[in-house]
Amino acid sequence: MKKKDPTVNPILNPESKKHSETDFNHFEVLLANRNSGIALETLRHDVTPIGMHYLLSHFDIPYVQDEKQWSLEIGGLVNNPMTLDMDYLKSLPQITQQVTLECAGNGRALFKPHWPSMPWTYEAVGTAEWKGTRLIDVLKTADVKTEAIQWVFSGADEGVDSGVQHDFSRALSIEMANNPDIMLAWEINGQSLPPQHGFPLRLVVPGWYGMASVKWLNRIEAIDYEFQGYQQVGTYVYRKDKDDKGTPVSVIRVKSLMVPPGKPDWYTRKRLLEAGETILQGRAWSGFGTPITKVEIGINDDWFEAEVFPANEKYAWSRWQFNWQAEAGYHQLKCRATDANGDTQPLEPPWDNSGFGNNCVQITEVWVEDDLSNV
Amino acid sequence: MKKKDPTVNPILNPESKKHSETDFNHFEVLLANRNSGIALETLRHDVTPIGMHYLLSHFDIPYVQDEKQWSLEIGGLVNNPMTLDMDYLKSLPQITQQVTLECAGNGRALFKPHWPSMPWTYEAVGTAEWKGTRLIDVLKTADVKTEAIQWVFSGADEGVDSGVQHDFSRALSIEMANNPDIMLAWEINGQSLPPQHGFPLRLVVPGWYGMASVKWLNRIEAIDYEFQGYQQVGTYVYRKDKDDKGTPVSVIRVKSLMVPPGKPDWYTRKRLLEAGETILQGRAWSGFGTPITKVEIGINDDWFEAEVFPANEKYAWSRWQFNWQAEAGYHQLKCRATDANGDTQPLEPPWDNSGFGNNCVQITEVWVEDDLSNV
Repeated sequence: MKKKDPTVNPILNPESKKHSETDFNHFEVLLANRNSGIALETLRHDVTPIGMHYLLSHFDIPYVQDEKQWSLEIGGLVNNPMTLDMDYLKSLPQITQQVTLECAGNGRALFKPHWPSMPWTYEAVGTAEWKGTRLIDVLKTADVKTEAIQWVFSGADEGVDSGVQHDFSRALSIEMANNPDIMLAWEINGQSLPPQHGFPLRLVVPGWYGMASVKWLNRIEAIDYEFQGYQQVGTYVYRKDKDDKGTPVSVIRVKSLMVPPGKPDWYTRKRLLEAGETILQGRAWSGFGTPITKVEIGINDDWFEAEVFPANEKYAWSRWQFNWQAEAGYHQLKCRATDANGDTQPLEPPWDNSGFGNNCVQITEVWVEDDLSNV
Repeated sequence: MKKKDPTVNPILNPESKKHSETDFNHFEVLLANRNSGIALETLRHDVTPIGMHYLLSHFDIPYVQDEKQWSLEIGGLVNNPMTLDMDYLKSLPQITQQVTLECAGNGRALFKPHWPSMPWTYEAVGTAEWKGTRLIDVLKTADVKTEAIQWVFSGADEGVDSGVQHDFSRALSIEMANNPDIMLAWEINGQSLPPQHGFPLRLVVPGWYGMASVKWLNRIEAIDYEFQGYQQVGTYVYRKDKDDKGTPVSVIRVKSLMVPPGKPDWYTRKRLLEAGETILQGRAWSGFGTPITKVEIGINDDWFEAEVFPANEKYAWSRWQFNWQAEAGYHQLKCRATDANGDTQPLEPPWDNSGFGNNCVQITEVWVEDDLSNV
């Protein structure tokens, strides 16, 4: 048997990671292969087609053969601890909502230097139509004790991060969890959740980055202290450097993306376009259902205002459109959204040590030719 | 307007790519984010869940709002040129088949040095249940002329690769296309094709690497010469070096993969496992429905034979299983399949200049601890 010294199991005793100045290592590529982003051209769809929504699974996707085996335990500081099955949950009043979710690490690869983790560029976003029941109705029945301050939501997925073994768990304050738009969901886009989206039951916290929407949800526990789980305090914290105490990642920052115009080069994904009128279009969204009030289009050094269409629903993205007269040559296209709070996207990535919350404007490089049939 | 010299549009006049010795560049990561691989733990499923099957789209995914707008033209050297709509195709006799498809570039990232392109490691595979009609029945109606030697299948997806503008097109010999198992498919896993799988119509060529299964299929043309399209002769060719005339990539090579045992480290995906009996399991498959006759499991330097279960259907993968007594320490696990032709997987990547056809054995690194509740 080939043995490395078992007293230094590198999973439980990992070396510290360091920022990378340039390229991406084998582990980052493994993560990019396993997780998946939206193809930017599918931003044309109001609701992201099944299988195109971004996916980030920290640990293994649990294998659940039959939802009849599943139960959701509600315990801790409650007067009425409960174990609920899927039949019961599906008998409750149902709601359906279109929700835009984005990974908090979206844009990590655009930081220079970048933190070695899932190297998203722009594509960790999607809008799905979720069906389920209101979380608050279920929690009310459990009757939380007055001394409780947080609910902890745990999934069946387990693993190790930075040497810490844990199940994926995230907390919300009792007050936050009273929001009637937070769902226990069992359907996406009219079908049962696929395994990778949390079958058979998940939390959907609209308006927050995706880490709050715990998949494979099997436990909810009321506690009277601030939850110290790894996914709450070890990561998903904005930090300027590794010693910064930081601020928890929560609500999605205002952002927009463009459907790349023209046609792509396979390898670089840069764009080739024929001169003439071109409809530029895309999506814009912000945190917690804050409406998008403005989208500006940057054509090289000039900015123009796009038409913004109202979102289908409170937590869904808005569509925007701009007619561009494309002239031959090289162009840098940008889009920049502003929301009803007056928040707008920065032109440069807002520094974060671990690469969270990067809502800087997308840049699309386009080469325009007068006649593409001639080249 | 910011202009690079428009006479050197780098999409139409690209620089030559070079092999990379070590890390992966920004373009490779963009491709990995946009395309998606199976999560290896979902190899447990006979049929890969919707949204988990590997996806490789060369160009943009076409936006098709309504299949009523779609038509399939059959022309070239035929006596009866036809334009078929989806209603007509769906009125033909239907077949349903489970087919394991793999990307020809799967394993590219494991070559040292590696070719800069989509940096798959192990995960570009999946088994879907396709529904459609037999290609041959449709082609017979078109009545190919005797001088024709190939059918060219074209998709609606278009772009540029290595400076060459083209629609994605692939050819099959007239004889090959007579295989009654080749399908025109409009459903995957009991539902209409999602856009990214080729909505509304695609070719499925069982047993061949995925590039043959043209998505968004809208034209089939009979020709009397060897097709010279970029996707036929510019890529998908096995070459020892760039000057090698090479051999076309076609049938899938024998391969196997393991469901990683234990639980993962988030970043490295290496595995942590508690000592004791562990069921190792996975999948094995080969080209053109050749049955898997043997799967061997490598535990460090020793090889053992796994139990292999018959495939559900001719072109679907087989499941294999092996009971392992895991002892504390570091282990390298491998799996190696052999098919009924006697072909077996190599231990090292079989060199290919562009990283095609890498069917070398997978290596899974596992750290076993006597008691995981103690660490």
